[in-house]
Amino acid sequence: MVMPLQDLKVLDLSRVLSGPFCTMVLGDLGADVLKVEEPEKGDEIRMWPPFVGGESCAFLSVNRNKRSMTLDLKTEQGKEVFFQLVASRDVLVENFRPGTMERLGLGFDAIHKVNPRMVYCGISGYGRTGPYRNKPGYDAIVQAHGGLMSITGEPGRSSVRAGVSLVDLSSGLLGAIGILAALKAREITGRGQIVDTSLFESLISLLTYHAQNYLSSGVMPQKLGTAHPSAVPYQSFNVRDGALMVGALNQKFWIKLCEALSLTELVDDPRFRTAQDRSTNRVDLSELLSRALAGFDMAEASRLLEAAGVPYAPINDIGQVFRDPQALFREMLIQIAHPKLGKISLVGIPIKLSETPGGINRPPPMLGQHTEEVLKELNYGEAQVIALKQKKAV
Amino acid sequence: MVMPLQDLKVLDLSRVLSGPFCTMVLGDLGADVLKVEEPEKGDEIRMWPPFVGGESCAFLSVNRNKRSMTLDLKTEQGKEVFFQLVASRDVLVENFRPGTMERLGLGFDAIHKVNPRMVYCGISGYGRTGPYRNKPGYDAIVQAHGGLMSITGEPGRSSVRAGVSLVDLSSGLLGAIGILAALKAREITGRGQIVDTSLFESLISLLTYHAQNYLSSGVMPQKLGTAHPSAVPYQSFNVRDGALMVGALNQKFWIKLCEALSLTELVDDPRFRTAQDRSTNRVDLSELLSRALAGFDMAEASRLLEAAGVPYAPINDIGQVFRDPQALFREMLIQIAHPKLGKISLVGIPIKLSETPGGINRPPPMLGQHTEEVLKELNYGEAQVIALKQKKAV
Repeated sequence: MVMPLQDLKVLDLSRVLSGPFCTMVLGDLGADVLKVEEPEKGDEIRMWPPFVGGESCAFLSVNRNKRSMTLDLKTEQGKEVFFQLVASRDVLVENFRPGTMERLGLGFDAIHKVNPRMVYCGISGYGRTGPYRNKPGYDAIVQAHGGLMSITGEPGRSSVRAGVSLVDLSSGLLGAIGILAALKAREITGRGQIVDTSLFESLISLLTYHAQNYLSSGVMPQKLGTAHPSAVPYQSFNVRDGALMVGALNQKFWIKLCEALSLTELVDDPRFRTAQDRSTNRVDLSELLSRALAGFDMAEASRLLEAAGVPYAPINDIGQVFRDPQALFREMLIQIAHPKLGKISLVGIPIKLSETPGGINRPPPMLGQHTEEVLKELNYGEAQVIALKQKKAV
Repeated sequence: MVMPLQDLKVLDLSRVLSGPFCTMVLGDLGADVLKVEEPEKGDEIRMWPPFVGGESCAFLSVNRNKRSMTLDLKTEQGKEVFFQLVASRDVLVENFRPGTMERLGLGFDAIHKVNPRMVYCGISGYGRTGPYRNKPGYDAIVQAHGGLMSITGEPGRSSVRAGVSLVDLSSGLLGAIGILAALKAREITGRGQIVDTSLFESLISLLTYHAQNYLSSGVMPQKLGTAHPSAVPYQSFNVRDGALMVGALNQKFWIKLCEALSLTELVDDPRFRTAQDRSTNRVDLSELLSRALAGFDMAEASRLLEAAGVPYAPINDIGQVFRDPQALFREMLIQIAHPKLGKISLVGIPIKLSETPGGINRPPPMLGQHTEEVLKELNYGEAQVIALKQKKAV
């Protein structure tokens, strides 16, 4: 069966989250991803707790559809194997600090001499140039540095971190877009190039309307808890046995919400007549709605809002997400056999293609599981493989 | 100059945030993006406050590098123009509720008859199939539904929303990846197909290690404020004049942090000796470090941590982000002339390509600014354009 990226061969030197997420997205769509790891230790995410059967859950989460080989890039023999891989692949992904690959003698220029068509994607904390190019980048550090934390949390209280590592993950997605764009450019120019993206820039690009509100009108975005800067009511409310989000994002939804909660008198209340009125009097409105919703349990409130067609959702925990009928229908929970752990559950593929869908064909690999297989593909003989092992190059 | 996606023609029917962000990322890399808007009203994000010179900042934030034409897709004349656009373009992007395009007679099958090579990307709340396919999807509703809100906030307090619309935005990025993958598949199959992604699935894919921790080990992720589930200390601390994030993510950084703060006695304290110890005794450790850092101001604390090489960052507000030397060096703030507003500032491009970079060549368009230009490209004569206007089809 055709997979959309079946002709793409990726050499993946990346570790932890941003790069591995990038290459996993490519692998889910059919790319052949070869993960190169340091002998003995491997990708440092393999050390992140919690563990199941000795394997890190975090590692399992971002490494399916990849083969793993070990390679010591500091040895001469390791470099020799590396450049053979470079010669036979389309894309390299790394997320070391800028300059690391050059210090190893493996920078873009050296790679380009061996394979002028190779696309080189470097995902760094702050980008390959500029005063902070050498700063290490970590998701939560950049959530602070790039402004996200200042707008996440309850009003008047400390900032909090967005619960997912969205800075790492969005930089991985932007890296994947940059790689696919550079491959399009290669069809025109015949040559590969550097895709240079970073955690910091990814986050800045996600600021979108917050950034523009500030840049154009001087409005400084603030922490609003669950609420929205302009749409009101669009926030969470407690019910007797939990909490749910309600979004009456326009006049139609607002009227339906009042009807659903038997609060029709609010529709004509001059404090709440227009979107602007509701925004101005958001504290009063929030109190009235909180009181009304506190009288329901989750099932009743859901039934009323569902019937009225008002956007809402329970504040699900992660367990509830993976029991959700839509998540299951859309195959966002899949199972695959793992060489050591038996059958394991993984998150499914969020991009569905109607004719040439992706798929999950390989479980997350054990460290170096495919070292010999890959060396044989490079025409290394048995004796040469043994020699590489003895020299600890693989 | 070559732009990586210069051969790509996108027909963009999408509104608000997810679809427009998707097509902006493609436009930044050179795609020719034609934004089709409802006559008179246009994209509903044009109504989002705050406004500058009558233009919505939110609209400005996600629509550069696009032309705008108006088209009433409910009229026969509008549909005729639509199918001419379909015939001459590669990609269509829409984010209506699933079924809307079919009801208008503009679904994938009708499009495919006119242009079998067209890639059709639908970004919806919950996907084009399954029990919730008709549910409206909004960023914060899905932040709740998909589990993000349950892990964002202070421990023991209410959940909060991640401050950026990351669900909308990540679904846009996944849509862009799906489009570029479907274009690769087209090189093999000769045909376009449907790219079906959603806010809900995007968020589930971003859960990564949280999802896997739960699925493999049963650990239910919790709200942790600014802290991290396994690395300790990796959280925010108040200083005299603000707050900053500090991440001592490994043993080396931990020792350097203790030295920087003149707390070397903590290195040998049995409560904090290993990563596991520090995680177990995170409350004690947090208190000790909070007390130490409270004595510094931001400048002193930054100088000490910088000199020690410990990852840290100030919790910047959005204004500070756009004065940051790295953001400026990396051209994350750019200026462009707008037909009505004069010179405006926009966020720069987060993906840097070394040989064929993208660029910002068009300011966000006025509603219908390019209607006549596009009709003329389709060989409509002056009289025909006037007729379309009289019938309010454009």
